[in-house]
Amino acid sequence: MTGGVIGIVGGGQLGRMLTLAAKPLGFDVIVIDPVANSPAAQVGAEQIQADLYDASALSKLAEKADVITVEIEHLDAAALQNVAKIGTSVQPAPKTIQMIQDKLKQKQYFKNIDVPTAPFMEITDEASAGQALKQFGKMVIKTRRGGYDGRGNVVVNNTKQLNPALEQFAGQKLYAEKFVPFTKELAAVVARSLDGKIALYPIVETMHKRNICTEVRAPAAITPLAHKRAVALASKVAQNLEGAGVFAIEMFLADDNKVLLNEVAPRVHNSGHYTLDGSKTSQFEQHIRAITGLPLGSTEPTRESAVMVNILGERNGPTEIRGLKDALAIPEVSVHLYGKSPTKIDRKMGHITATGKDTQTARKRAQRARRRISV
Amino acid sequence: MTGGVIGIVGGGQLGRMLTLAAKPLGFDVIVIDPVANSPAAQVGAEQIQADLYDASALSKLAEKADVITVEIEHLDAAALQNVAKIGTSVQPAPKTIQMIQDKLKQKQYFKNIDVPTAPFMEITDEASAGQALKQFGKMVIKTRRGGYDGRGNVVVNNTKQLNPALEQFAGQKLYAEKFVPFTKELAAVVARSLDGKIALYPIVETMHKRNICTEVRAPAAITPLAHKRAVALASKVAQNLEGAGVFAIEMFLADDNKVLLNEVAPRVHNSGHYTLDGSKTSQFEQHIRAITGLPLGSTEPTRESAVMVNILGERNGPTEIRGLKDALAIPEVSVHLYGKSPTKIDRKMGHITATGKDTQTARKRAQRARRRISV
Repeated sequence: MTGGVIGIVGGGQLGRMLTLAAKPLGFDVIVIDPVANSPAAQVGAEQIQADLYDASALSKLAEKADVITVEIEHLDAAALQNVAKIGTSVQPAPKTIQMIQDKLKQKQYFKNIDVPTAPFMEITDEASAGQALKQFGKMVIKTRRGGYDGRGNVVVNNTKQLNPALEQFAGQKLYAEKFVPFTKELAAVVARSLDGKIALYPIVETMHKRNICTEVRAPAAITPLAHKRAVALASKVAQNLEGAGVFAIEMFLADDNKVLLNEVAPRVHNSGHYTLDGSKTSQFEQHIRAITGLPLGSTEPTRESAVMVNILGERNGPTEIRGLKDALAIPEVSVHLYGKSPTKIDRKMGHITATGKDTQTARKRAQRARRRISV
Repeated sequence: MTGGVIGIVGGGQLGRMLTLAAKPLGFDVIVIDPVANSPAAQVGAEQIQADLYDASALSKLAEKADVITVEIEHLDAAALQNVAKIGTSVQPAPKTIQMIQDKLKQKQYFKNIDVPTAPFMEITDEASAGQALKQFGKMVIKTRRGGYDGRGNVVVNNTKQLNPALEQFAGQKLYAEKFVPFTKELAAVVARSLDGKIALYPIVETMHKRNICTEVRAPAAITPLAHKRAVALASKVAQNLEGAGVFAIEMFLADDNKVLLNEVAPRVHNSGHYTLDGSKTSQFEQHIRAITGLPLGSTEPTRESAVMVNILGERNGPTEIRGLKDALAIPEVSVHLYGKSPTKIDRKMGHITATGKDTQTARKRAQRARRRISV
């Protein structure tokens, strides 16, 4: 088509849903993905089959695309920066991605602008790790880079647990964070347009199992004070990021309605999948609008409540999805499958969104639908 | 994916929007279309590049597909019937498509089950045409087959206009229909599931220029009596069609709240495009659900009013769409482009849907958005 070409680093489910949103707006899409017939390619994205860190693939993408964006933050940010220097628009800004992909730098950046976070410190050896443990008590050791779906996090309660934790991450740069006894995990998707306008989606509650997001409830059931603080935090973070696009801001809700920044993702995010069915503009269309200079769409909900449940693989083997018919028989239930094969235990194979007049209704529908599907 | 393979005869904008709906439900799509890189192929449908009347292409499609459907009724219904006999499910039933594609047979079929229509009769020569004119007064001569976007219709007011009309359609089978001085044109999309359940969308008003649909207003602004009659007519028609899928029922509203059947399309339809943004389930997802044995979705509107305006080509040449940014700056406006090139005068290049608290609001938004786009 003639609307221009969008390049995406990564062609998984996020690239797929971005492509599905981009096509009706007249854009062509090209993705880089190592696996042939990626989820994005299945819905009409051209695919450059290459590793996400392949700089020559990125150059090829830059030659063809009018704007490059990402569906994952674990990539070669320096190469992205080079591409941007040569003249292809990269959104969000490579330096934002670079800052975010190092979680320690991210934390420092936001702490410096007075965004509340849990206390943290860099650890480089046993001594500094011991120092952190002394200061924080219960703490979490995290890798500075590459953590995803909870890989790269380990809780340390005492000195006995310290060495095994350090050994587990041998060779990786680390930091420690005081364990926050949070009552809920919150998130908000926020979009920034090329001209700096900001559109915030509702604050949602995210649930995790085995460190993987399993459920998202929109809106979050929190006090007005916690809500106000979460909105203020998310808005402040959004205002201090460079470049256009959708960002996901993950937060902890602690005692006394305290809201702390957990981390930021410079991309569309699992916590925003519910927007496909529960919002006037999906996060995917919003991201496409943001990075191509189109005006941001409305972030208003279309229904009182929406609950998203991930369809995680339950076994290893060729994908075979059963129970779709029974799931769709439930009112206000939508199913979005990602076209992945094989299925693997805990692999994100799709998601379900249910809407309803309140969260309990939506949740029951989503959970019931999830139980009816096997994958 | 593993949900099965849907074959579609035709890969234009309807095939494209069907594909966009099918993919997230886990289906693969294959289309037959004569033009490479069809609108459907651009969103990930595999394409068999062949004429729609190519029987060998249809056989190839039948080998690969679990169910075959159509985005156009002008095709080889006998070949479809053969395919169905060999064992591939064809939805809707080929005999339904065959009946519908001959407009005279269609009229006769519905007249026989007491669906109100304008008076009509077959004409085979000058004498029978003269007879029809005598009986009907002002009348419309129509080709029995192949009429589309008003091609194949001519109004005849008097005997002087009779011969030129007949000459225009020389060699084609014809029928004549009494001219209905209608006050509005109405339409309704209706879905039938494999097990015969029926889901009716709201009655809408359709506007035409140069015999091409330009605007659809949902819901139609008609009296309760006219509404009741339109619903009864559409339901009766739907109950008397064979096979699963979405059908569009076009009607005339005449004096005294009389509602007459105009014609039926055995497929998703321009009059239902508004459902992408104005209904809980789009006609495209509904069709996919219907033909694959999934339960039908809700046909409830998501907003008081929705107005769809077609984006028709304004010139001949390579496609270049301008003004998208300005159009999307208007609240509650969605734009759906079809990926067609070149643009041609009156070619359907895309559509706009605007929603709002009433039809006037939605209409103003849609019209304003349309004026801002050039194609």
